[in-house]
Amino acid sequence: MDRVSQIMSAEPFGGLPAELYDPIAYTMRLGGKRIRPALLLAANGLFGGQEEAAYGAAIGIEVFHNFTLLHDDLMDRSPLRRGEPTVYVKWDENTAVLSGDTMYALAWRHFLRQPSPHLHEILQCFNETAIEVCEGQQKDMNFERRTLQEVSLADYMDMIRQKTAVLLAGALKIGALYAGAPQEEVEKLYAFGLHLGLAFQLQDDLLDGYGDTAVFGKKTGQDIRDNKKTFLPLLAEQKASEPQAMELRSLFASKANMDEEEKVRRVMALYDAIGLKAHVEESIAKEFGAAREMLDSIAAEEPAKLPLRELMALLMDRKK
Amino acid sequence: MDRVSQIMSAEPFGGLPAELYDPIAYTMRLGGKRIRPALLLAANGLFGGQEEAAYGAAIGIEVFHNFTLLHDDLMDRSPLRRGEPTVYVKWDENTAVLSGDTMYALAWRHFLRQPSPHLHEILQCFNETAIEVCEGQQKDMNFERRTLQEVSLADYMDMIRQKTAVLLAGALKIGALYAGAPQEEVEKLYAFGLHLGLAFQLQDDLLDGYGDTAVFGKKTGQDIRDNKKTFLPLLAEQKASEPQAMELRSLFASKANMDEEEKVRRVMALYDAIGLKAHVEESIAKEFGAAREMLDSIAAEEPAKLPLRELMALLMDRKK
Repeated sequence: MDRVSQIMSAEPFGGLPAELYDPIAYTMRLGGKRIRPALLLAANGLFGGQEEAAYGAAIGIEVFHNFTLLHDDLMDRSPLRRGEPTVYVKWDENTAVLSGDTMYALAWRHFLRQPSPHLHEILQCFNETAIEVCEGQQKDMNFERRTLQEVSLADYMDMIRQKTAVLLAGALKIGALYAGAPQEEVEKLYAFGLHLGLAFQLQDDLLDGYGDTAVFGKKTGQDIRDNKKTFLPLLAEQKASEPQAMELRSLFASKANMDEEEKVRRVMALYDAIGLKAHVEESIAKEFGAAREMLDSIAAEEPAKLPLRELMALLMDRKK
Repeated sequence: MDRVSQIMSAEPFGGLPAELYDPIAYTMRLGGKRIRPALLLAANGLFGGQEEAAYGAAIGIEVFHNFTLLHDDLMDRSPLRRGEPTVYVKWDENTAVLSGDTMYALAWRHFLRQPSPHLHEILQCFNETAIEVCEGQQKDMNFERRTLQEVSLADYMDMIRQKTAVLLAGALKIGALYAGAPQEEVEKLYAFGLHLGLAFQLQDDLLDGYGDTAVFGKKTGQDIRDNKKTFLPLLAEQKASEPQAMELRSLFASKANMDEEEKVRRVMALYDAIGLKAHVEESIAKEFGAAREMLDSIAAEEPAKLPLRELMALLMDRKK
């Protein structure tokens, strides 16, 4: 992760016209955990790859990820990202559209800057991943127009698989492809990434309800205020008694006809009555467990697996 | 061009979720002249390429072009395209953002579906072209915030080179690369495409002022109503006497403080007094002439050049 920081901060991301590139440099400077390039390089190392050969793809996948955040923030009208104003707020909507488009092209430039005998397959993996991320974002937006009852847990898991998990899985697959890993091991690594990504998103959902505000860095309960159909209300609805489920549906259908903080309190009280936190933690542990099994099954030396195990431990432990 | 029509209409462009893919299929059905894929295949044939091997790229470049139109229409708030409502009007702004992003990824899918020993160079050409198109669109938007005097003819030619010409040039280059053409000839073809693209855009500007409404299919003078700094007012300002130039600047600085049709009439009267139409036609002829010289200089059999000559004649003759 230190090396990821190094190679990312060596990139300028600026350019002319300034109106186009300043928002890109701003977005890339906001930082983030840089999980995806770290996974890509760790997967590369797992099969004895030359780390430098995969730097372009590592940067490319992070630029792509930040492009999706930039356009998502515009579409979701999210004014803040990592505590700073988002691009459509700091500049305007057109800037967010076009700087985002350009970031997508810049991601490709990084992918294309290094040759590889496996380049065609690597680029196809990156591109099919990008298409799935778009489909996942559309499904997420579609959920906004549905009631809690109209979204099933299976719909939700399918959505977060596409919106979040495939990019982690794709990063791992791409790293392994650069190293010339055997097809079978690449597929296992991809499955490892999917489980990791699902666990990552469920944690995100859990933190919104149960994060420690001081560590989490933002107010909890935002998903509840936004009536977002995350894993929490969807699982709660399944675990609830019929009267509890009715109350939950009614709370998630309400539009500003109740004090927002009162609504958060009532939803959280319902969650507590159901014992939701433990259920969600169990689901997260299940995904991490499945991820670990996949990693265990990969034919590679144990010391080479260490970086991926450490990355997984880091993700399991996250408080924000 | 018949073959381009065939291969384009064989593509479904639909998919699920429908909210994402319906606007894409709609956009691709709206049609257009399909100039870019035709140029790509003609360039491929010029060097004896296997036409089928370049079909993916031909479709990809047309999908990319339509993606840029979709996002441009959103940014420019253009309600109509080819006489039909644009995506942000027919659906909404978020749909325009995300369906556009997805079209960009779908363009890549088409580019990646066919192997080529020159694939890396082809993809780099496509990607660098895409970045220039984004830069050109930003420069175009920047002009909106400037007065007529603050945009030079050189700025304008640089903008349309990036926004319009490089994509025609890129299409030609890509077609030639698929055929394994020598580097020197590829560069000449690229230069041919730049001149062709500049001529194409200047024609567009001219048609807005002097198009035959019945053939043009839309009301002329829209660029004047929008105070757009196209080639027409920029060249007119250079050719005008000082009093004429002052009147022109004042008309292009006006915001709805004059009847729109009266404004169009006054600008057109100024253009006529300056003899602008002949000057613009001369500039267009100069670009077409430079394009023809480039084409003449390319080391290929004359019969193989015929499709490109015919395409050029088609463009020179266009009335809409």
